[in-house]
Amino acid sequence: MAKKPPNAISSEDRLIARHFVPLASHAGALKLTDDAAMFTPPAGHDLVVTADAIVGGVHFFPDDPADAIARKALRVNLSDLAAKGATPAGFVVSLALPRSAGEPWLKRFARGLGADAEHFSCPLLGGDTVRTPGPLMVSVTAFGTLPSGAMVRRAGARVGDHVLVTGTIGDAALGLRLRQDPKSSRRWNIPGAALRHLERRYLLPEPRNALAFAVRKYATAAMDVSDGLAGDLGKLCRVSGVAAMLDVARVPLSSSAKAVLKADGKLITTILSGGDDYEIVCTVRPARLAAFMAAGRAVGVPVTDIGRVVRGAGASFCQPDGKVLSFARPSFSHF
Amino acid sequence: MAKKPPNAISSEDRLIARHFVPLASHAGALKLTDDAAMFTPPAGHDLVVTADAIVGGVHFFPDDPADAIARKALRVNLSDLAAKGATPAGFVVSLALPRSAGEPWLKRFARGLGADAEHFSCPLLGGDTVRTPGPLMVSVTAFGTLPSGAMVRRAGARVGDHVLVTGTIGDAALGLRLRQDPKSSRRWNIPGAALRHLERRYLLPEPRNALAFAVRKYATAAMDVSDGLAGDLGKLCRVSGVAAMLDVARVPLSSSAKAVLKADGKLITTILSGGDDYEIVCTVRPARLAAFMAAGRAVGVPVTDIGRVVRGAGASFCQPDGKVLSFARPSFSHF
Repeated sequence: MAKKPPNAISSEDRLIARHFVPLASHAGALKLTDDAAMFTPPAGHDLVVTADAIVGGVHFFPDDPADAIARKALRVNLSDLAAKGATPAGFVVSLALPRSAGEPWLKRFARGLGADAEHFSCPLLGGDTVRTPGPLMVSVTAFGTLPSGAMVRRAGARVGDHVLVTGTIGDAALGLRLRQDPKSSRRWNIPGAALRHLERRYLLPEPRNALAFAVRKYATAAMDVSDGLAGDLGKLCRVSGVAAMLDVARVPLSSSAKAVLKADGKLITTILSGGDDYEIVCTVRPARLAAFMAAGRAVGVPVTDIGRVVRGAGASFCQPDGKVLSFARPSFSHF
Repeated sequence: MAKKPPNAISSEDRLIARHFVPLASHAGALKLTDDAAMFTPPAGHDLVVTADAIVGGVHFFPDDPADAIARKALRVNLSDLAAKGATPAGFVVSLALPRSAGEPWLKRFARGLGADAEHFSCPLLGGDTVRTPGPLMVSVTAFGTLPSGAMVRRAGARVGDHVLVTGTIGDAALGLRLRQDPKSSRRWNIPGAALRHLERRYLLPEPRNALAFAVRKYATAAMDVSDGLAGDLGKLCRVSGVAAMLDVARVPLSSSAKAVLKADGKLITTILSGGDDYEIVCTVRPARLAAFMAAGRAVGVPVTDIGRVVRGAGASFCQPDGKVLSFARPSFSHF
């Protein structure tokens, strides 16, 4: 090995300079040349912090496009900020790279990450790159800000509140099913465009940051739907000390999911408990329902009223025949 | 599989409740029952953010005790905060668990993490637990606070400054060598206690948070020594636009490292460039040197003057014969 002067730039630093420094537009990132970053919320504001990691073969397919993996890693965190009513402010990323992730892969990964950092006004503040003999792992910690005390919690739902959910539910869970078992598409017998819609919804979540302000203004409780609507709503009810009665028929479904359900009605439990939706579920007092719905329309985020908060425990999904749906596994869990 | 009501607690939530909620003593952690945590630096203070991940088989040995792995993951981040002059305020952790990490392992991991969180007044704020088919990975993002504008950067060293380093250098690199090649101990022919000292220094860093206040008060530039003194000092010089002339004979070594060096003089490059020291290297103006050294003594952190900042580029290590040492690899890099 050739002798190098002690001021030679290490290959890790070169990798960071080439791919990640261009994303570190925030002054506090110090161009990624320091041990740490500086970030200070504006006066009168709280910092909201969330951390979510994704692992190859667990949360995404190792052959997913590098830019989609990067964007998913950031977006699952942005979704948490949105559900809390916070405005994205920045993020740090720890990246564990297998040898297979070479220069072209990194270039594409950084391009995807940079595109979303810009789109969501959430600049890269810092991070770490390490080698791993295992699968790729992207661990993001994201920061948001909001006026002091304004964070919307899971605890806060009150009896009588309406339960609202954004977008459509179940697409990603069906998209995952398609990726895991491509033969499903033949059984479901739905158009190619519908299949691609479901797969795309699994590949790349659409966090509802546009609605954060309205959540902050109108919701009594909120969370992002990542482990399945049924289980996540169960968690919200538990910490709020209430129950929720939901109407299966009112849960918003895409035309693709409706077509799948027509072919196999049993998939309703997959739709309601499969996870990876990255929609927001929240509770709103009846007097503020119209204003919240209008705020959703104003920012182009569909919002659907799916039921009410009641006394008791647990989230129950009522079918059109009046029976309550039961789940083998209401909430997605790797454990 | 038995049908469960949608309000059944998932096994991931049970795992978190059992092992990690007891560590989440900060009110903003919301007992780990929400999507995000809240943290707000005191008025007039900046937030300092650092992220470092460790991977099994890369940064630690998979059979290291679980509590030591947890503590190392937190301590490598605490070391960054110390070098920036920041006071630890809290951390989030993303934990990728292989199947082999069962209940007893987790219990021990959480116990180690909790002990250090308490010792360093750095409570758990939140995080994520995921499954991985690969090695264990612990990704920590740590937060510190300090008066606005007071963060000590790598950029800031000025010609004429003294270069100071805490503790002793090279122990961890030699400890790693021993773990990788146990036969080294025979060649080195040093007492068992010395071997154990070196191995312990690799297993569990001792971050210099006690010195953070003095670094903030007296240092013109600082960083933590994680990738080797030679390379890290080279980085500090580069962003400061200066050079450093260091005296190899003045670099502080433990008696164990001195004994090893006696057996094999070539290991000086391993000592100076091996990394994992987690000491602080900083630069201090001559007029403030005595006060800084006194501050070190006051908090029980040994501080050694190893050279000066000069005009030019790069960090050069002068040997007793006057020749400048060269390195095959001045800085540890996985890439």
